[in-house]
Amino acid sequence: MRNLDQHTITQEVIDRLVDTPDPRLKEVFSSLIRHLHDFARDVSLTEDEWARGIAFLTATGHKCDAKRQEFILLSDVLGLSMLTVAMNNAKPPQCTEATVFGPFFVDDAPHYDNGSDVANGAAGEPCEVSGTIRDPEGRAVAGAKIDVWQADAQGLYDVQRDELDRPQARGVLHADSEGRYHFHSVLAEAYPIPTDGPVGEFLAATGRHPWRPAHLHFRIEAPGYETLVTHVFREDDRWLDSDAVFGVRQSLIAPWVRRDDGSYSLRYDFVLNPETAPVSQAR
Amino acid sequence: MRNLDQHTITQEVIDRLVDTPDPRLKEVFSSLIRHLHDFARDVSLTEDEWARGIAFLTATGHKCDAKRQEFILLSDVLGLSMLTVAMNNAKPPQCTEATVFGPFFVDDAPHYDNGSDVANGAAGEPCEVSGTIRDPEGRAVAGAKIDVWQADAQGLYDVQRDELDRPQARGVLHADSEGRYHFHSVLAEAYPIPTDGPVGEFLAATGRHPWRPAHLHFRIEAPGYETLVTHVFREDDRWLDSDAVFGVRQSLIAPWVRRDDGSYSLRYDFVLNPETAPVSQAR
Repeated sequence: MRNLDQHTITQEVIDRLVDTPDPRLKEVFSSLIRHLHDFARDVSLTEDEWARGIAFLTATGHKCDAKRQEFILLSDVLGLSMLTVAMNNAKPPQCTEATVFGPFFVDDAPHYDNGSDVANGAAGEPCEVSGTIRDPEGRAVAGAKIDVWQADAQGLYDVQRDELDRPQARGVLHADSEGRYHFHSVLAEAYPIPTDGPVGEFLAATGRHPWRPAHLHFRIEAPGYETLVTHVFREDDRWLDSDAVFGVRQSLIAPWVRRDDGSYSLRYDFVLNPETAPVSQAR
Repeated sequence: MRNLDQHTITQEVIDRLVDTPDPRLKEVFSSLIRHLHDFARDVSLTEDEWARGIAFLTATGHKCDAKRQEFILLSDVLGLSMLTVAMNNAKPPQCTEATVFGPFFVDDAPHYDNGSDVANGAAGEPCEVSGTIRDPEGRAVAGAKIDVWQADAQGLYDVQRDELDRPQARGVLHADSEGRYHFHSVLAEAYPIPTDGPVGEFLAATGRHPWRPAHLHFRIEAPGYETLVTHVFREDDRWLDSDAVFGVRQSLIAPWVRRDDGSYSLRYDFVLNPETAPVSQAR
């Protein structure tokens, strides 16, 4: 302990977790410490680089507030979010796939009846969205709670607009007795993730573009089913093959039909996965 | 790209760094992404755990301000700081070893002449500190700049005392023409690292104590020499074998002699490592 070197320190730090009461916490931190140290050794991290890392994380933390979650954004651009989604959402092929949650969800979005306009003044081409919520056997999931949120014509979410005093282009609906949902909003457009913080610096320094293909966010909850967090992407978007946060799934791409009056319509049907016994929570 | 899974996503994220102009940045982030993903896969990170990780990092960032650096503290308790120090401070055995920088350094400490009392009112037993700054051949490093900082009798640094309007128990001195330094201060005491933030929660959750053995911090700079960041530890401290931040080196432990009048004295001689050509910076 008094003469730890760069090779012996890792096991010593892990051994210090010996009294951790929660075995899962011990497992997670033992692995985290091992991989963190392996990373530092693999690249022979310099003290200056360490200090820059500390400064980067600090700036990322300072960018976070009630409306901005820069650490989620960082996790997204490093692929950690989509990796976590992929590991935790294995399901039968007929079920709708999940994708990243993103940093722009808010907990207290306004409730709307089916058929309402959730845009609430957001700029953009009119767009009508409808579909069904069903189980793998095709049975309606009546009353499913649907959170929807999206960017406007300028590619901004309401929470990114400081001047805005009300929610726009987001809302909560419930599927009807036949599992149907239906709302009006504006056409989702491709947008760059926020680049005015540390994540933007990272993207610029690594020559990466910040664009996400146009999409609608959905979170769908119903008793007895796994909660589904996903997007529906616009077919033919130029960024589908280079999404800044690695969230695209082929099965989530849909045609958004342009109608004669210039408005758009999207129909997308979701299939929820029935909950199984919560084995993993039974530790 | 449209159907990445938990195994294929890692290479895709790394491939996205293809246009990174700085090859070192590309190397560091490629390794970071690989190890971060390997960690998540190794423990089968759940979405709830991911969310708790995001919340932990966010809280850590929010705890950082001009006087508090919670990310350095986190790096310290995870052993990353000491690992980085160990990797970057290989030197001939006669040179003084380095240890962690810690979160309590400040850049604009007051300057003092040799023989001054740097305590500036800090509580504690009087303690006189002296020694020399030399090169490996025993030659004086005249004029070496010495930053010293320490905790007081209550185990607190001045920057941890909101009520304090001036620096205490820290200062800048310069070695004299014979490489000698000399100052008065208070006796350094063992102390717990700050536990009122996320790092304290981590220590509590893992059953770890937050104590550091009593020590004085030194940073010594002189043209032509590697900057030395180190501590001198008090012999016989009960925490020497379980330092919360893994910073103890046997060679940095010294006797702090109690004198008849109740005051203490410490003599410690430092040996700086001459700078070599900056090979690692010549990329």
